[in-house]
Amino acid sequence: MANVWVRILIGGLTMLVAIGYKNYRDLKAPGKRPDLDNNAYWGPALKEPYRENKAILPYDISVKPEVIEDLKSQLSRPSKAQAPLEGVGFEYGFNANELAKVVKYWRDTYLAKWTEREQYLKKLDHYQTEIQGLKIHFIHAKPTQVKGQKPKKVLPLLLMHGWPGTVREFYDFIPLLTTPSDKSDYVFEVIAPSLPGYGWSQGSSKTGFGVAQVAVVMRNLMLRVGFNKFLVQGGDWGSIIGSNVASLFPENVLGYHSNMCGNNSPLGQIKLVLASFFPSWFVDSQHASFYKGLGHMFSTILEEMGYAHIQASKPDTIGNALIDNPAGLAAYILEKFSTWTNPSFRSLPDGGLTKRFTYDQLLDNVMIYYVTNSITTSVRLYSESMVASQFALAVDSLPIKAKSGCTRFAHEIVHTSDSVLANKFPNLVHSTHHSDGGHFPAFELPQQLYDDFVSFVQKADLS
Amino acid sequence: MANVWVRILIGGLTMLVAIGYKNYRDLKAPGKRPDLDNNAYWGPALKEPYRENKAILPYDISVKPEVIEDLKSQLSRPSKAQAPLEGVGFEYGFNANELAKVVKYWRDTYLAKWTEREQYLKKLDHYQTEIQGLKIHFIHAKPTQVKGQKPKKVLPLLLMHGWPGTVREFYDFIPLLTTPSDKSDYVFEVIAPSLPGYGWSQGSSKTGFGVAQVAVVMRNLMLRVGFNKFLVQGGDWGSIIGSNVASLFPENVLGYHSNMCGNNSPLGQIKLVLASFFPSWFVDSQHASFYKGLGHMFSTILEEMGYAHIQASKPDTIGNALIDNPAGLAAYILEKFSTWTNPSFRSLPDGGLTKRFTYDQLLDNVMIYYVTNSITTSVRLYSESMVASQFALAVDSLPIKAKSGCTRFAHEIVHTSDSVLANKFPNLVHSTHHSDGGHFPAFELPQQLYDDFVSFVQKADLS
Repeated sequence: MANVWVRILIGGLTMLVAIGYKNYRDLKAPGKRPDLDNNAYWGPALKEPYRENKAILPYDISVKPEVIEDLKSQLSRPSKAQAPLEGVGFEYGFNANELAKVVKYWRDTYLAKWTEREQYLKKLDHYQTEIQGLKIHFIHAKPTQVKGQKPKKVLPLLLMHGWPGTVREFYDFIPLLTTPSDKSDYVFEVIAPSLPGYGWSQGSSKTGFGVAQVAVVMRNLMLRVGFNKFLVQGGDWGSIIGSNVASLFPENVLGYHSNMCGNNSPLGQIKLVLASFFPSWFVDSQHASFYKGLGHMFSTILEEMGYAHIQASKPDTIGNALIDNPAGLAAYILEKFSTWTNPSFRSLPDGGLTKRFTYDQLLDNVMIYYVTNSITTSVRLYSESMVASQFALAVDSLPIKAKSGCTRFAHEIVHTSDSVLANKFPNLVHSTHHSDGGHFPAFELPQQLYDDFVSFVQKADLS
Repeated sequence: MANVWVRILIGGLTMLVAIGYKNYRDLKAPGKRPDLDNNAYWGPALKEPYRENKAILPYDISVKPEVIEDLKSQLSRPSKAQAPLEGVGFEYGFNANELAKVVKYWRDTYLAKWTEREQYLKKLDHYQTEIQGLKIHFIHAKPTQVKGQKPKKVLPLLLMHGWPGTVREFYDFIPLLTTPSDKSDYVFEVIAPSLPGYGWSQGSSKTGFGVAQVAVVMRNLMLRVGFNKFLVQGGDWGSIIGSNVASLFPENVLGYHSNMCGNNSPLGQIKLVLASFFPSWFVDSQHASFYKGLGHMFSTILEEMGYAHIQASKPDTIGNALIDNPAGLAAYILEKFSTWTNPSFRSLPDGGLTKRFTYDQLLDNVMIYYVTNSITTSVRLYSESMVASQFALAVDSLPIKAKSGCTRFAHEIVHTSDSVLANKFPNLVHSTHHSDGGHFPAFELPQQLYDDFVSFVQKADLS
């Protein structure tokens, strides 16, 4: 199979020509909203017509003690891992020596204080409601006001994580959003759902549940909670689903802020290529270091996108390999918290995992995948979103009418410049570059993300 | 990450231009043999100078009873697998319902008769010797002669499997090779090694052990056994490593036969693109159905090469996810015995696994990976072979001087036509197309592969 790279290259050429030809004429035309069923049913096959249970109920995230006991015993198996190659850190993926340390900590330290971790995860309020046949979990965090001061105006916010993240990423970020600060005229009422198929939210039983369809569910969730107009914030899939919400439902979105803005419209992709060849046409020289060109993008695809390739094509194979496999799950998930936080961490024997996170934080996140058994349903989002039928909806070609803010943290996987974003974000009122941070800023640098977000909201002038 | 495909495409274009430019001038020039150390040491770091133990010893492949007991208990865990999406067979990868059946058979039927399976695996003679610091396992099968008839001439044969195969693929093929038949003037003395890092052969402890370096080890193994001149046969990595042996050591190779011939030289890759656009220039119309063009190749890369992408970039992550994880390992390995045997099996709920194989055959193969704990070391071959330092050796540009035979079974992943092969195989004396069979013909259609192989040997006229 050694020639697979070359074949990827060859395939790339052809598809690019095909895309170019197909889209040449209507590149700049604004897209048409696709016809999506806002009430589509995604649950298991029913014998009777579906009747949605519209109740919103508090949700208990407690884990049964026998699950913890079983996990302990699984983590107590003697390691059979092959030693890493000599002198290798994380360049070949998750280092087996570091994995042994993580497993030991998980078993002996983390699980020993599981009650405390569980209480920590419960400190925010968890709810569940049924949307389109799926039980959707979300955190609902209400803002506080300072006694004796003029109350800040409250804005609702839909806050979405990505893969392999969970709502756990937001535990330091949410309190900032709900607490009045000098930096903002607003406080936020936060709805942070587990994406469908992630964590405590049920996955679809039917095929065809990609980002646009998930966006419909997320918007319906906000309506259910009672918010007809709301802000959106997200990274990773949260960014893309949020972009779909804003594109499909302009009437509901007050503003869109993302730490991973992208433009996958045909024009956006062409500009991305041109920007790589002629960066000075597209990028302010001040931020040139953020935009590393096509060579960097290509090496990133080869070195860092294998997980996306297999998840988009064989999600159930990788899911079946990770289900009921805690050590493997930790390796698979935490590799991303190393490399995506800073690519230079690849050369470290421990992947720099604890440079920006604690094992407790990281294992909380892994635990949510493990106890909810959701890795298979989570990776199916790739196969349902990176597929012709989803691209055919052309949501990427719908401009986002809401005021938008795009922020970039230095070590994000790939950055997109304002000029490349332009046709997708005609109302880009806020664009920033941070010299620090990676793919998970809410988790890694919550204060910095908060400052950026409220700065966007001030500029957007939503009063 | 929805735009990763488009980025793959963009990357493809650039690399293609770069490759085209770089190689334009010296496309047709025959390559120069790279300077490889035929005695490079690949074992773990030593305190004293390495002294190779040249002994060839019988090797006992017995599995400790406690390993079988532990495996049984692991396979007895209640399944936590997520149900497949409604109406889905193997299109999303290994179907969880089928996996439950495989696991049940494995635990209740296969392991119950493990002694018999073990005896079966022992029916061929196993040996081990040390090459360049690695303990290399191989099957040595000596030919028989028919009493009272003129003895057939004996030719030594290096027979190599690929990933996710093992020597188990050859258990029906080898007896055909070693037994005199009317179809052949020859019988064969077969050396079938476990590739280094596969099955019972030790993997490298050092980086940089790609196909060319493996080829050196395999050639040294043949010299060790006492064969200075030998035939080579293989598929998958066995084909590519065999191609490296034949390219690097023309003085040792009597002939090369493969069921997956490829030409990864720059000229070969350019011809492959041209052949896709203008098939009639390159392909005999009689076999046109074998060569499906660029669209098919591209969709195959997207749909079927995710495993190669992750194994080439993060082998230790996927290895750590599959080590000590029998059900996951079976899903990961056996998906290939479904899809690569016939792509149409993807639409079947059971992946058509038992249409061409028995569960016993398939589980023998999985067991070898499991009991030898070799999945991590096996997938590292991707990362060490699909990397710039390996491509820089340019073994692909060395023509194979030996007489060569290329056979194609209908459902192989991708086929390469004679005209595309031409500059790599100037002595292609045998080229065939079979209307049946897939990626594992020695396992699936041993008689047909035997007939094809001996037909090649007759044509090659090695007397």
